[in-house]
Amino acid sequence: MYLDELSMSEFRKKVKRKNLVAILPIGAVEAHGPHIPLCTDSIQPEYIAEKIAKKLNAIIAPPIRYGNCQSTKNYPGTISIQPDTLRAVVRDILTELVRNGVKNIVVLSGHAGSVHMAALRQAARDVVDVHDVKLMVLSDYDIAYELRGREVPGDDGHAGTIETSRVMAIKPSLVKNRGRKGAVHIPKFRVLRNPEKYWENATDGDPRKASASLGRRVNDYIVLKLAAYIREMLAQPG
Amino acid sequence: MYLDELSMSEFRKKVKRKNLVAILPIGAVEAHGPHIPLCTDSIQPEYIAEKIAKKLNAIIAPPIRYGNCQSTKNYPGTISIQPDTLRAVVRDILTELVRNGVKNIVVLSGHAGSVHMAALRQAARDVVDVHDVKLMVLSDYDIAYELRGREVPGDDGHAGTIETSRVMAIKPSLVKNRGRKGAVHIPKFRVLRNPEKYWENATDGDPRKASASLGRRVNDYIVLKLAAYIREMLAQPG
Amino acid sequence: MYLDELSMSEFRKKVKRKNLVAILPIGAVEAHGPHIPLCTDSIQPEYIAEKIAKKLNAIIAPPIRYGNCQSTKNYPGTISIQPDTLRAVVRDILTELVRNGVKNIVVLSGHAGSVHMAALRQAARDVVDVHDVKLMVLSDYDIAYELRGREVPGDDGHAGTIETSRVMAIKPSLVKNRGRKGAVHIPKFRVLRNPEKYWENATDGDPRKASASLGRRVNDYIVLKLAAYIREMLAQPG
Amino acid sequence: MYLDELSMSEFRKKVKRKNLVAILPIGAVEAHGPHIPLCTDSIQPEYIAEKIAKKLNAIIAPPIRYGNCQSTKNYPGTISIQPDTLRAVVRDILTELVRNGVKNIVVLSGHAGSVHMAALRQAARDVVDVHDVKLMVLSDYDIAYELRGREVPGDDGHAGTIETSRVMAIKPSLVKNRGRKGAVHIPKFRVLRNPEKYWENATDGDPRKASASLGRRVNDYIVLKLAAYIREMLAQPG
Amino acid sequence: MYLDELSMSEFRKKVKRKNLVAILPIGAVEAHGPHIPLCTDSIQPEYIAEKIAKKLNAIIAPPIRYGNCQSTKNYPGTISIQPDTLRAVVRDILTELVRNGVKNIVVLSGHAGSVHMAALRQAARDVVDVHDVKLMVLSDYDIAYELRGREVPGDDGHAGTIETSRVMAIKPSLVKNRGRKGAVHIPKFRVLRNPEKYWENATDGDPRKASASLGRRVNDYIVLKLAAYIREMLAQPG
Amino acid sequence: MYLDELSMSEFRKKVKRKNLVAILPIGAVEAHGPHIPLCTDSIQPEYIAEKIAKKLNAIIAPPIRYGNCQSTKNYPGTISIQPDTLRAVVRDILTELVRNGVKNIVVLSGHAGSVHMAALRQAARDVVDVHDVKLMVLSDYDIAYELRGREVPGDDGHAGTIETSRVMAIKPSLVKNRGRKGAVHIPKFRVLRNPEKYWENATDGDPRKASASLGRRVNDYIVLKLAAYIREMLAQPG
Repeated sequence: MYLDELSMSEFRKKVKRKNLVAILPIGAVEAHGPHIPLCTDSIQPEYIAEKIAKKLNAIIAPPIRYGNCQSTKNYPGTISIQPDTLRAVVRDILTELVRNGVKNIVVLSGHAGSVHMAALRQAARDVVDVHDVKLMVLSDYDIAYELRGREVPGDDGHAGTIETSRVMAIKPSLVKNRGRKGAVHIPKFRVLRNPEKYWENATDGDPRKASASLGRRVNDYIVLKLAAYIREMLAQPG
Repeated sequence: MYLDELSMSEFRKKVKRKNLVAILPIGAVEAHGPHIPLCTDSIQPEYIAEKIAKKLNAIIAPPIRYGNCQSTKNYPGTISIQPDTLRAVVRDILTELVRNGVKNIVVLSGHAGSVHMAALRQAARDVVDVHDVKLMVLSDYDIAYELRGREVPGDDGHAGTIETSRVMAIKPSLVKNRGRKGAVHIPKFRVLRNPEKYWENATDGDPRKASASLGRRVNDYIVLKLAAYIREMLAQPG
Repeated sequence: MYLDELSMSEFRKKVKRKNLVAILPIGAVEAHGPHIPLCTDSIQPEYIAEKIAKKLNAIIAPPIRYGNCQSTKNYPGTISIQPDTLRAVVRDILTELVRNGVKNIVVLSGHAGSVHMAALRQAARDVVDVHDVKLMVLSDYDIAYELRGREVPGDDGHAGTIETSRVMAIKPSLVKNRGRKGAVHIPKFRVLRNPEKYWENATDGDPRKASASLGRRVNDYIVLKLAAYIREMLAQPG
Repeated sequence: MYLDELSMSEFRKKVKRKNLVAILPIGAVEAHGPHIPLCTDSIQPEYIAEKIAKKLNAIIAPPIRYGNCQSTKNYPGTISIQPDTLRAVVRDILTELVRNGVKNIVVLSGHAGSVHMAALRQAARDVVDVHDVKLMVLSDYDIAYELRGREVPGDDGHAGTIETSRVMAIKPSLVKNRGRKGAVHIPKFRVLRNPEKYWENATDGDPRKASASLGRRVNDYIVLKLAAYIREMLAQPG
Repeated sequence: MYLDELSMSEFRKKVKRKNLVAILPIGAVEAHGPHIPLCTDSIQPEYIAEKIAKKLNAIIAPPIRYGNCQSTKNYPGTISIQPDTLRAVVRDILTELVRNGVKNIVVLSGHAGSVHMAALRQAARDVVDVHDVKLMVLSDYDIAYELRGREVPGDDGHAGTIETSRVMAIKPSLVKNRGRKGAVHIPKFRVLRNPEKYWENATDGDPRKASASLGRRVNDYIVLKLAAYIREMLAQPG
Repeated sequence: MYLDELSMSEFRKKVKRKNLVAILPIGAVEAHGPHIPLCTDSIQPEYIAEKIAKKLNAIIAPPIRYGNCQSTKNYPGTISIQPDTLRAVVRDILTELVRNGVKNIVVLSGHAGSVHMAALRQAARDVVDVHDVKLMVLSDYDIAYELRGREVPGDDGHAGTIETSRVMAIKPSLVKNRGRKGAVHIPKFRVLRNPEKYWENATDGDPRKASASLGRRVNDYIVLKLAAYIREMLAQPG
């Protein structure tokens, strides 16, 4: 399942399998309030990748546990890499996967910031325009947030009910405490040097409403939907 | 109103005015179906900029009429510049405006693609992190699409009812014909070499439902909201 | 005539015309003394482009109204972009014009600084070395200054008699006053942090001798000569 | 111990501890013969980092499991990132650790290629020249190879006796088989497009002589020496 | 006289001398017809630098014998480096000279192509905008060509009468034969992939009219004028 | 022998010779103690290149007399260029040699720093991966230091016995005095802002034991070995 636990000989065989999918999980080291860990955006896509890999017999490339953070950039614990750096590292990895014969790749990010996601999409664009490969780029929150407005408030966000629930379901030992309700008050459309002034606690939503069972339902939903999207990709002509 | 119609002496005076706002309109040369022109994304923010400039006594920097296009990149007429190029040109301009003493700048884009917008936000980030300036980056569609689901379908998009209406209101002579209903069928999350295969006519929505009066209402709404956001920015401490 | 006023369908047809020429006007936002506007270097090549477009049935790509300024870089109102930025934006546009099937392109700059012009030439070099296209790069002042030493002094320069006359001919409403005689006293071959110390008023020549009729004669001369150069290009084998 | 398992609040406290050391493990995805896994260069420094962290109460930043590979670059399973990419990602991480208040950092690579190590050193140089931080950059093989010529042949290398032994000691389940003796025959000083032509099996040395007990002795030796070097660094004035 | 023939101790002393000038000669490896060598553009500024160094007690930094060539780029023997490379190498050297305490620097190029010279000027701009140093950038042909129209035809150029004469005066053993008259017929303003098609023999002017005595007069003229410019620079306030 | 002393016509002929080898000498401007000159790393490979050129009928490209220096970077007289700059200039030159038809190239550096050598190897990698050419990259110290532990101490280094001896053999007039014994005390694996604090006199070894005759023996040894390596390269299939 883990690409780099194979030997070169095992990998050479594996890669010949028809419809082999490789998943590249992308995380972040980012402040997520006082209640959940800096690796919150890393463990979520890694968990989903494992589930998908079991379901679809996919392989998982070593995760990148760093991403680009904008609004939390000045919080303690955030370790943000430049968008250009993120793009370069993902482009290099995708290029090498293609050189090795991988034909279907999913870049799955736990972090969902718009500049971060654009860097991932650009990396994919760099590769797909010159190589013959099928590529998918998404954050698992592109799927998870479809559930907002049902069991959770429509404005639930970063380190809120859903995210806290998912961490409770995936790695409960890393949940520190119940957290505090919070909301982003960054003025619309502003690009700020100190966005944290408008956002206390790096929490957007109410983590106190989180539960492991909700987290499991969200995770299951993501796995179900993502597996379906990947199967569609495999079925599409190009 | 137009920054570059001033002489150096006039500009020096102008820039000392308290709360002076400069607007930098960003457009695109992009296929917008058979019915509206390639400059569709340029004329909309330029129009809004004029209205805002009159309302707030702002100045307008020369527009950039090129942007980064992803899904229409292979259509005839699209002239897309790289995200890095867009970022560089906007960063250079913002830097120079700041050097000249401008303290409040709005980057207003007609095009709203996510990679394009990320490039604009990165340019702003590059500047705001090292200079003392208030910056706002948005697409006028960030505001316009709040109206979706009211008079127009919730999934109206590129070259659809709203966009066609706005062109009818702003520059009717450039509306070629009534257009055709269309929809984007690009599979979710895919980054494709030939996205146009999944998107006929470069139209997403129904341009045949467009009207100049709807266009005027949308434009008025954008001006109203944007003027309010700018006034808030002027009132904020930093 | 204006490329981006066409729809994608109109553009697709237009581009098939034999010997179609596209003109890309490059301007600047640059201090030109107290008497003529910051857009002086923009409106001149845009005016020439229109005349050429009518004469040769050419199309005009959206102008870039920013350039790289060296000696006026610290004057109020100058908004200079980096040479690398200018090169990138022009390279991207030329590349996309070529992708669209355009075979003959004229990059026409109103600003004539040597670093600025080198950036334009490098952009053209980047494209011509890998694509099949005929390219011409010039400043209209490469032609206009052939007239120095005839009706105007041999050392007439930036914002001087010729340039002021051309603005009077093209857009008289933007001429602010009669200006003042000036001369560049930058020591030979020096690259200075503060060149403006050696150059009062950003004027090199005598604007008080300018006239709209001289401006018209200069403009006509440029159109005549440039049209001839373009026709030669069309006739050349490669 | 793991930096990103902390919450932002825990991290803020932790970072204030006097003489806190952060370790950044760097690995690779690289062919290591038919007998040991592609992650061989990742699990070694991660193991050492854990031991050091326990010994010195250090924290471990999320590992980068990608490096630059030269001589194995065309083997199946190698996923090499560009030296510039590696430098950028390490520079960004170091910069952010410094921003967060970390004062002592060890970049510990399992891969020891000269271009790869130069990229790490340049990243450290980029940071140390502008920030106040103590930095150490090494491969654990800089220490491990001191043991060559004692229990193992002096020319033991990539995927040979020492490396196989260490994998046996650290993660025996990933050892696939006994491997084959091999040697690099790349002509001296040549930079080759296809170095694998001169190097069968991506093995340099004799893995059949490997043992878990040798691996443990090597690992213990590295931990002992590296802990001493780090303590010296903490004691040095700058 | 030669900077790098000093030891570090000698250099430390030398650099403290008031009004010390360092000269950085820039050459090229470029086709200069069948009659003069590829190093023609290198030996000329190196010769001038020696004369100036003797006259003004200046030091000479190791020459760069590579430049950027445009119109001769496809001729045998031309070894052209990219403008960005040239800019980087000159910027790095200037930066280091400044770090070492040098306060007055002359970048003296034998090659005079416009893109090449722009790269040198940008390098100087990069340095002068952030460091306290007086910089001069020129080609010795900026001075030599003032003599055109006197003893030699007004259109004498590359490898023509003046250049051949100068090589005869500086290093007669490298003059191969009398050469052939030639002229550049590159159409005006064109940027061409194969400019050599419009320029036979890489000669522009009549080398058969060259003489060592003319070469000596030209060289003397350059030394006289350049020494004067440098003395003016030393006398200027900044 | 010197590539750039040929005319374009002579070069065109020369390059057709079977098994023609071009040597590109790379030097440095670097502090080498009080006793030997800043050009120490330049004159050594240039001397070896001449000897090799005579032996193998090779041609010598104009030397680059600048390199990247790390541990001596703050000493007076060191003029270090960035690794990226070094890589770019070498890549450009190699690319142009290949364009000209040269099929065998030796990049021979006098300086042997690891970051410097990695830059040279990357330049070679850039070229060999896309062009058909045989490349060799080395420092002459890769060979010279094989002699350590015989006539000279095993830890002889920068500006020590061997290096001083070689300068005495090559250009005795540039030897200033007998120098002083010294040793590098930079703590292991540290990347330091001020490495000179741990290294007095920029000397590593004992220059007082140097002799011209030892220098000649070392030089002869290098020439012998390097000529053999080059002949092997010519004999190899690719």
